[in-house]
Amino acid sequence: MADSQIYLASTTAPVNIAVIKYWGKRDPKFNLPTNSSLSVTLAQSDLRTHTTASCSASYKTSDSLLLNGQDQDVSGARTQACFRELRSLRQKLEDSDSSVPKISTLPLKIVSENNFPTAAGLASSAAGFAALVRAIANLYELKEDPTDLSRIARQGSGSACRSLFGGYVGWQKGEQQDGSDSFAYQVAPASHWPQMRALILVVSAAKKGVSSTTGMQTTVATSSLFPSRANETVPRRMKEMEKAVQEKDFETFGKVTMMDSNSFHATCLDTYPPIFYLNDVSRAAIKVVESINAAAGKIIAAYTFDAGPNAVIYYLEENEKEVAGLFKAAIGEKDGWGVERGQKLDANSAAYESVAKEAQVAVDLLKEGVSRVILTGVGEGPIKTEEHLIDAKGEPVKKA
Amino acid sequence: MADSQIYLASTTAPVNIAVIKYWGKRDPKFNLPTNSSLSVTLAQSDLRTHTTASCSASYKTSDSLLLNGQDQDVSGARTQACFRELRSLRQKLEDSDSSVPKISTLPLKIVSENNFPTAAGLASSAAGFAALVRAIANLYELKEDPTDLSRIARQGSGSACRSLFGGYVGWQKGEQQDGSDSFAYQVAPASHWPQMRALILVVSAAKKGVSSTTGMQTTVATSSLFPSRANETVPRRMKEMEKAVQEKDFETFGKVTMMDSNSFHATCLDTYPPIFYLNDVSRAAIKVVESINAAAGKIIAAYTFDAGPNAVIYYLEENEKEVAGLFKAAIGEKDGWGVERGQKLDANSAAYESVAKEAQVAVDLLKEGVSRVILTGVGEGPIKTEEHLIDAKGEPVKKA
Repeated sequence: MADSQIYLASTTAPVNIAVIKYWGKRDPKFNLPTNSSLSVTLAQSDLRTHTTASCSASYKTSDSLLLNGQDQDVSGARTQACFRELRSLRQKLEDSDSSVPKISTLPLKIVSENNFPTAAGLASSAAGFAALVRAIANLYELKEDPTDLSRIARQGSGSACRSLFGGYVGWQKGEQQDGSDSFAYQVAPASHWPQMRALILVVSAAKKGVSSTTGMQTTVATSSLFPSRANETVPRRMKEMEKAVQEKDFETFGKVTMMDSNSFHATCLDTYPPIFYLNDVSRAAIKVVESINAAAGKIIAAYTFDAGPNAVIYYLEENEKEVAGLFKAAIGEKDGWGVERGQKLDANSAAYESVAKEAQVAVDLLKEGVSRVILTGVGEGPIKTEEHLIDAKGEPVKKA
Repeated sequence: MADSQIYLASTTAPVNIAVIKYWGKRDPKFNLPTNSSLSVTLAQSDLRTHTTASCSASYKTSDSLLLNGQDQDVSGARTQACFRELRSLRQKLEDSDSSVPKISTLPLKIVSENNFPTAAGLASSAAGFAALVRAIANLYELKEDPTDLSRIARQGSGSACRSLFGGYVGWQKGEQQDGSDSFAYQVAPASHWPQMRALILVVSAAKKGVSSTTGMQTTVATSSLFPSRANETVPRRMKEMEKAVQEKDFETFGKVTMMDSNSFHATCLDTYPPIFYLNDVSRAAIKVVESINAAAGKIIAAYTFDAGPNAVIYYLEENEKEVAGLFKAAIGEKDGWGVERGQKLDANSAAYESVAKEAQVAVDLLKEGVSRVILTGVGEGPIKTEEHLIDAKGEPVKKA
């Protein structure tokens, strides 16, 4: 019976960490940013959202979303915008070809799982909305390319648009009021510069900071320094960063990454009331990166911080010993060093000793304040999978 | 014998804490700033430098300066500039009137003492150079007014120019290359708004940060946000602040004070490499001030931070209980509560209890990180004194 058929499609989608930060909306409704941004997509073996989208006339309930076993509210404007836009594209397909099954109006049932602890405070909404949009697009067999889909994912969560691509990804702010030219594009695939690695230091925050949506709106409204960042600094840095990626120029990549992270947090501090995402542990990570670069005589490590105290440290594979190895020696046993790549990584005690002299206070703060590490690198965009989180009866698959 | 006569003059000079910050030099040689600034002069009973200037043909040594019992190097360009300019003014007096003793070329012997611990990390160079210039001007019986002298003190230490006046003091950046129009002026005397109080929380820093001279030059050279602060934000805030002082409008005074401190520290963070003066204890002080203002339903307390982690909290006398009293209850026994005014101040445990609920982490950080407090308020400019630190034989007076 066609009515009870369960339509299913699944994908995984990656996390991305910006090196030119998105902060500030010129239009909250369409999630249109005040400036362009650029990110590195991280490997899904370490960080990903796995999502199955399904629809069926047999589903008794309206649209639903289960994330890590928890029912989520899908009535919010952002999720609704994604559903509406994807259904509208499916509707067009159905209208243009009568042989296409009419499924655009059926209830959607979506099941999602992250392979990383939610408590880590890693921005999961980018991977989440990218997976949601990609999974439904697969379900609906849409022909739209990732750039088209990025316009939709952007309405779910701004930075989600960048997670529809692998490698090095830009998000152009666009000029149109309807957001039609505000989409993501691939600057270079992961294969262009596959040596890029990222060490994430998960810092236990005393309490959750200001949410990024609230924070960025307050920054736009109150920071007197913000306009010069959005209008002058970022446009210049976007060009510098795209060139650095094209030329695989880590020194420029690293310097601009650090400067842009600092610029973003500076506008947070210039917000009224001020927003602080960096704490003394974050500052300690900065200090150690500075010591590593000083010892190397050039930039081989670059820190960046999103809207929280976690440090993400980019470096090239050839410097793994000098960067990740030193951090392993410095901060000692932590969850995360134990997994695959981490086990193979030797603690670089010799390099650590030389840095420790001038950064002992920082090292002590890191030892105490870092709760876990994630050792990862540049990776691919969303990957279609036949491993579904919903079974043939339309029920969420029970975990073993 | 005239040759052995000891000429002596003494003064005290105050510390000032800016509410519109000086950060950035447009000319390092003349100490010319990139933006105007405005400060409150603090009471000398709590914080002052006491300086005696003397000269005599009998002095065997060249110019010398003894500060808190330690010989200081006077060969630096800044001290030399002050000596040179003051001698030149004295020379003019001598040239114009032959009855004036010819002392401009005699060796100078200067003895200075601060009434506050150097270890407190309070910017003492402002009071120090103001006292040095004022004492020598007294010694030379110069007719120049404080504005004229502020041009000289500025060359010793930028913010010293503001310590030549009491009350509320502006320093106009000026436009001339020679610095002739870069001087301090009184916005209003202390008597205009004598209710202004200041609570200083001295925070023990793990180590000394970047010096302000080095720091501000790096900011000017590398911060992309700095020009908009210097060219747009500060000129607007100078007008707002002068008006707030004239109208005794604490809410505007407080809001602009906090925003300008944040703006200054934002440009430090936007410097490459970034400069951090605020630490987690500083942030905790900000949090408690925000809680106090939230409880009051208006701005009754305003934080500001110079190039270090110490918090200065301005408030009006009428709110001493709600502000200083709350801090006394929150951070407990510390050096500084014991002196005169501090003893009279009751710990406001009731107000503290209500704030503690939402700011317990901040309060714990303050308890641990504040090493001493100074309870003071707006005060007078330099005061001439007959209490000399050099005796009739030209020797430093031994302390009892």
